[in-house]
Amino acid sequence: MNITIPRGTQDILPGESAKWQYIEAKAHDLCRRYNYQEIRTPIFEQTELFSRSVGDTTDIVQKEMYTFEDRGGRNLTLRPEGTASTVRSFVDEKMHGWANQPVKLYYIGPMFRYERPQSGRMRQFVQFGVEAMGSADPAVDAEVIGLAMDFYKELGLKGLKLVINSLGDKESRTAHRNALVNHFKPRIGEFCSDCQERLEKNPLRILDCKQDAEHELMASAPSILDYLNAESRQYFEDVKTFLTAMDIPYEVDPGLVRGLDYYNNTAFEIMIDGEGFGAITTLMGGGRYNGLVEEIGGPETPGIGFALSIERLLMALDSQGVTLPVETGLDAYLVTMGDEAKKAGPRILHELRAAGLSVDGDYMGKKMKAQMKSASRQNAAYAVILGEEELAKGTAVVKKMADGTQEEWTLEELAANLKKHLEKEKGVSR
Amino acid sequence: MNITIPRGTQDILPGESAKWQYIEAKAHDLCRRYNYQEIRTPIFEQTELFSRSVGDTTDIVQKEMYTFEDRGGRNLTLRPEGTASTVRSFVDEKMHGWANQPVKLYYIGPMFRYERPQSGRMRQFVQFGVEAMGSADPAVDAEVIGLAMDFYKELGLKGLKLVINSLGDKESRTAHRNALVNHFKPRIGEFCSDCQERLEKNPLRILDCKQDAEHELMASAPSILDYLNAESRQYFEDVKTFLTAMDIPYEVDPGLVRGLDYYNNTAFEIMIDGEGFGAITTLMGGGRYNGLVEEIGGPETPGIGFALSIERLLMALDSQGVTLPVETGLDAYLVTMGDEAKKAGPRILHELRAAGLSVDGDYMGKKMKAQMKSASRQNAAYAVILGEEELAKGTAVVKKMADGTQEEWTLEELAANLKKHLEKEKGVSR
Repeated sequence: MNITIPRGTQDILPGESAKWQYIEAKAHDLCRRYNYQEIRTPIFEQTELFSRSVGDTTDIVQKEMYTFEDRGGRNLTLRPEGTASTVRSFVDEKMHGWANQPVKLYYIGPMFRYERPQSGRMRQFVQFGVEAMGSADPAVDAEVIGLAMDFYKELGLKGLKLVINSLGDKESRTAHRNALVNHFKPRIGEFCSDCQERLEKNPLRILDCKQDAEHELMASAPSILDYLNAESRQYFEDVKTFLTAMDIPYEVDPGLVRGLDYYNNTAFEIMIDGEGFGAITTLMGGGRYNGLVEEIGGPETPGIGFALSIERLLMALDSQGVTLPVETGLDAYLVTMGDEAKKAGPRILHELRAAGLSVDGDYMGKKMKAQMKSASRQNAAYAVILGEEELAKGTAVVKKMADGTQEEWTLEELAANLKKHLEKEKGVSR
Repeated sequence: MNITIPRGTQDILPGESAKWQYIEAKAHDLCRRYNYQEIRTPIFEQTELFSRSVGDTTDIVQKEMYTFEDRGGRNLTLRPEGTASTVRSFVDEKMHGWANQPVKLYYIGPMFRYERPQSGRMRQFVQFGVEAMGSADPAVDAEVIGLAMDFYKELGLKGLKLVINSLGDKESRTAHRNALVNHFKPRIGEFCSDCQERLEKNPLRILDCKQDAEHELMASAPSILDYLNAESRQYFEDVKTFLTAMDIPYEVDPGLVRGLDYYNNTAFEIMIDGEGFGAITTLMGGGRYNGLVEEIGGPETPGIGFALSIERLLMALDSQGVTLPVETGLDAYLVTMGDEAKKAGPRILHELRAAGLSVDGDYMGKKMKAQMKSASRQNAAYAVILGEEELAKGTAVVKKMADGTQEEWTLEELAANLKKHLEKEKGVSR
């Protein structure tokens, strides 16, 4: 009986994994240019970290976490997102004392949420995220947004739409909150029980409710933008000015909110034109969280970041027919004829690999014709053909697969000659 | 109150993470040359997969697994190693039917074992492993060993020692097993209770016992090499001949065994000279497992692979004082003077980053002198200095940090000029 893969997870197989490597290399390279450095946190954390940072009342914490006890009785949870762990590390490592401020970090790794699996939503999925902690300069907000936009653009996505909003500072949020309570309270009985609970606890989250999305009070709800104080308004203006200077178009959507108390000022999402892309139109989200570090036990520290799903990105690339320029095909395939040539194979392959070339040979005892087929099926640029006669002379016949032309080289010059030809033809230096 | 990192796990921070990236890039590049392709399997699997493949009687399965129930009542386990998942995927995806055989795969990712944390042994650790499934050619054994040796060598480790052994085929193993039982049975009462249990179940594992390592029957135990039949002996000879042809020295150690039934023929380990390296001298292990695919529910398929710990590799590099050539330092740091120049900063940074340069600027409202300090602390190759006067002219003063020489360039030519100079000086093309 077969043991199947756990529900909601996937194997990333050859072919597909090359795309992942390309995307990750792009993330690493972009972060190098933007001077964000990688952090790798554990796959699991103490459960309390997420209930405190993601929020006790959220679906994630209430319904979607993989929580378990280890053999020492510790209550652990597979991380459902990356910000909490990054901030935990910031506090643990006292990064607020590091010489270079703000501390600019990024992560790429698997996250876990127990949800109903569906297209673009897996129980294990990979997030790429960045966090900049220690500066309240609106230029950082623009930088973080710029990095996210560059990521999608440089991978070849079209039709990107940046949506931004301001949630204001604490004072502005309190004013808005009161306005929301006053707006909904008289008719809260018409809303779902979740919303009724939210009214006092967190009225902002009523605006996120899917069940009551069509209620007439939703469209007429007070906008946060009307409640921003002078400082928050100026901050938002500065972010917008920087985005414009950076040639990044945006739309303001006052309905773009974040439910948790420690979010403030800038919130943003990147969407994609939905043609043929089904329900998923939001690619990623991010925002400023000036209260989060304190919530986790560190000093008051402004912060901003985003997180995006690689699975969703791959779906978007697919839906737009974007082919990533991943390198495929061998540099050479070794074809041997006869026992002696076969025995010489491993040494020759080893030498070519040591020289940086991607090469392979036959390990299935195939005849020459079948070996040539393997060479072309694996897109080898060259077939290196070795028979008893060549072996005795210390040479090999090298056939260029693209046009069938062939030359005879000594085994000593084989690696160097192949590299020279490949560089000329493919433009890759091995 | 702080929430601490779970015991036995670690954060990999900037500086350290650059080393990990370098090592992973080396693994990816080597596997490209050897034509192994990446597979990524889920972090958790059905628990049964490991009890069946790693073995019910092993410490891993009995004491060290992170096992839990998900919200749907599934019994899941964080993977303690990578081979079982790879083979599960091989069976799931019917890879035995793929056109290219053997199927050559590799993985790099976190594994989990609940052990007492100590130097070089973490509860979450990262393994790089390869698996070649579908060929019983001894050339594959040599190839897999060659890949592992190249990995360590190319990273700069010295004093590597390859130890190999043959466990023989089923017939040879049965003969050896009977000899072991006959050898230990008369005096088994002098051994620990674990060994007493092993006598009938799996006498080979007695040889692995740490508690009874000094017992006089250990040294005189029958060697597998004396029980190899003709076919197994020839196979082992072929592997050794290939290794010698590939210039890879080895030692044969008949005491190198694998406890599980599905291991056969080649077993190998790479050790390192222990000076200043404490107890850890074995860097990695691997071997042939011709029965494993069948055990997991697939067709009879020969296979061979290895797994190695990146944490242990890092310790070995450290102990030998090897510095990995990771790229550090910014290409340029933007220094601004005055409000207008500061406001122009994000646009200029964005343009330089779009051109491929790694650049940063000040987000802390620092004075010019402190900004220059940031530039040198972050090893910037150039400081791009922008004052009101330069801004009005559309220029910037560019100072080479190494020698303090400076030139004035227009903002239009800034990116191209920087790239030209950096390529000349650092030899990197952005």
